[in-house]
Amino acid sequence: VAATPEQIRATIDRYVAAFGNGDKDGYLSLFSPDATVEDPVGSDVCRGPVEIAGFWDGVRNLTPTIHLQLVGSPRVAGGAAAFAMQALPELGDTKMVVDIIDVMTFDDDGRITSLQAFWDMAEMRPYDG
Amino acid sequence: VAATPEQIRATIDRYVAAFGNGDKDGYLSLFSPDATVEDPVGSDVCRGPVEIAGFWDGVRNLTPTIHLQLVGSPRVAGGAAAFAMQALPELGDTKMVVDIIDVMTFDDDGRITSLQAFWDMAEMRPYDG
Repeated sequence: VAATPEQIRATIDRYVAAFGNGDKDGYLSLFSPDATVEDPVGSDVCRGPVEIAGFWDGVRNLTPTIHLQLVGSPRVAGGAAAFAMQALPELGDTKMVVDIIDVMTFDDDGRITSLQAFWDMAEMRPYDG
Repeated sequence: VAATPEQIRATIDRYVAAFGNGDKDGYLSLFSPDATVEDPVGSDVCRGPVEIAGFWDGVRNLTPTIHLQLVGSPRVAGGAAAFAMQALPELGDTKMVVDIIDVMTFDDDGRITSLQAFWDMAEMRPYDG
């Protein structure tokens, strides 16, 4: 049995909250044991909790706070989901923004089995919202 | 060498235009010979021009016109892309809308090698825009 749309939406909500709140343990708990993270798409794929924790640390070394803001609702289909969002990192004193689409697959318990993040550093810009 | 972001964005623009204009030949010309279409994600995968043409015909049998409207810019990364849009089919006399995210990969010439469309029929609703 696949994860239900409700489980998938709950995992995405927790993912956005944990990422924005700097809750590393909460973030890591959302992934299955052999999950993969490719962020951005085209970069090296991280697999498993040690590598995914390393990815988290790498992001936090670049920016101490990074808020995520969903744009529209997640599209859930066939036990997978895609959702658009804006990531709002602070680089020094400057709030920046970049548009992202995340694609996730899930296991039966609604844990993330793969995450691909589509975005381009060249599209990052100062945030004027 | 992978497709450039410019090639990828041009293919997406042509895809949106061909789909909305009912241009079946233009649509089919955007795919590589062994391309796959999974629309929606979780349904049977169509492979190659005959099956993709069958997918097109199936959609057109349900609705004669179906406009696509990008929401934000395509996110291009690693020779792939994801983009959010609204599909606006007409069912009888009723304009409907459903939110979709398409994920595409591309060959060196910027042709689509795979398309996955994330959406849920249960989310379709009358269009009041």
